[in-house]
Amino acid sequence: MNDLLNLALHPPAATGGAPPRPGKVTLVGAGPGDPELLTVRAWRALRHAQVVLYDQLVGSEILDLLPADADRIDVGKHAGHHTLPQEQIIELLLNLARAGRPVLRLKGGDPYIFGRGGEEALALAEAGIPFEVVPGISAAQGASALAGMPLTHRDHAQALVFATGHLRADGHGQGRAVDLDWELLARPRQTVVIYMGLAALPEICHQLAAHGLPVDHPAAVVQDIARPSMRTVTGTLATLPQRVQDAGLRPPALILVGEVVRLHHQLQTTTAQALMRAAQTDMPISLISS
Amino acid sequence: MNDLLNLALHPPAATGGAPPRPGKVTLVGAGPGDPELLTVRAWRALRHAQVVLYDQLVGSEILDLLPADADRIDVGKHAGHHTLPQEQIIELLLNLARAGRPVLRLKGGDPYIFGRGGEEALALAEAGIPFEVVPGISAAQGASALAGMPLTHRDHAQALVFATGHLRADGHGQGRAVDLDWELLARPRQTVVIYMGLAALPEICHQLAAHGLPVDHPAAVVQDIARPSMRTVTGTLATLPQRVQDAGLRPPALILVGEVVRLHHQLQTTTAQALMRAAQTDMPISLISS
Repeated sequence: MNDLLNLALHPPAATGGAPPRPGKVTLVGAGPGDPELLTVRAWRALRHAQVVLYDQLVGSEILDLLPADADRIDVGKHAGHHTLPQEQIIELLLNLARAGRPVLRLKGGDPYIFGRGGEEALALAEAGIPFEVVPGISAAQGASALAGMPLTHRDHAQALVFATGHLRADGHGQGRAVDLDWELLARPRQTVVIYMGLAALPEICHQLAAHGLPVDHPAAVVQDIARPSMRTVTGTLATLPQRVQDAGLRPPALILVGEVVRLHHQLQTTTAQALMRAAQTDMPISLISS
Repeated sequence: MNDLLNLALHPPAATGGAPPRPGKVTLVGAGPGDPELLTVRAWRALRHAQVVLYDQLVGSEILDLLPADADRIDVGKHAGHHTLPQEQIIELLLNLARAGRPVLRLKGGDPYIFGRGGEEALALAEAGIPFEVVPGISAAQGASALAGMPLTHRDHAQALVFATGHLRADGHGQGRAVDLDWELLARPRQTVVIYMGLAALPEICHQLAAHGLPVDHPAAVVQDIARPSMRTVTGTLATLPQRVQDAGLRPPALILVGEVVRLHHQLQTTTAQALMRAAQTDMPISLISS
């Protein structure tokens, strides 16, 4: 695959003939992890893929749906353990499409929710390359359905806020200290979901309480959403950081804050187990054009 | 169907034998409208459904996936044009499940995002009825992907807020005046999505500007998301209400507010058209257990 990667990053000079018609890029949300939570359209795009660029968050169960002869480029873990910089991912997409190849760009969750899909789509639009965006079930929705914490509820949460626990990278792909809009996040009667914030959990809980939420406000962390290894730890702004540390939770994980977390113990029972079991034991399913 | 509805709302008294094992209820998000945006799991649940309770927002293309002999109950438009009250929907779910019938409860979008799925799940949990929740692509995600307005973007929107334009009903199913958390919604550098707010659009735009957003802040309305009749009207807080009125937009529609709306003209091109075209002309697809 390094050959394809090198070729795509350093395409040969044009030889004078007419350039090929650009390939179409399909930006696809792969959902939270379980292949059953792909959209039908995403499933079909996977089954027909020729060249695939995928992120670290896309699990092997989903990559298993690709045709055996599809070219795969892992842009999440490349050259050791470094992530390919966003600029190079875009360059790769453009070069492959300009070479006439249809490209499947596969991202965890939804490409337009903290997936940097907007940046990639803009680059494609500016380059005149045809593209399509297929939405995906975001991690928050997967956690909500499976861990039994409705994201909204008439009695508990009339608004829903998504944020990320990472600041803009400093150009070297390094996250900096958390700098969230605490006034926004600390308002009552809403559910707050923080993506990629696990490392900053103690600071997040501290700041939310400092900005007005009660220290016994419910909060939870869900790890490995929609995978058999999924784990949920609940608590309050005061207790959650220690509980999460004791449980040894690791990224990828999502933080949920709000009264709806209290519903977890009632609503998680059949849900998560049923979906996990189904994912493991159902008969294989094929999407077949008739 | 009225027979089934009456039977379910007024079940016969028990005759002394052991009650049947309760049927399982599957709360399924039907996504924004296009059957291609169902999850694989939702598609499968539809194909195997026996009794279905569905809302007004679930379109006929999706209902067409149901087996011909499935019992269908439209809880969105019943007895003329009134919506079945939420309490009766829950009663119906409980009675059908208690009678031993597996029930598919089909909702537009995601059951746990403004879908009142939480209330139904809680009633099922309290009654000891097994259930499962299948997340769905929410209307905001459908509008975002198809109309070309990423919900987040590093340069424009680091947080995403979902709210509804309707207050809690007053007990008779009537919406009251809009009473949103304007301080929350009027913060900069975020995308705000308001569900079910079209009738209140002038007030919403006015309040957002009154609470600090510039009057030239971008905003849009998307009607009939992920359907061939989808329409998008963009403008600013100052111009949008008149433009939407001139265009004659009607519910169901979503309001999007934020800098990302500016990307619509660049990003909508291939996206919406491609998906619409695909939905209309692709070969039929079957999900077949192998």
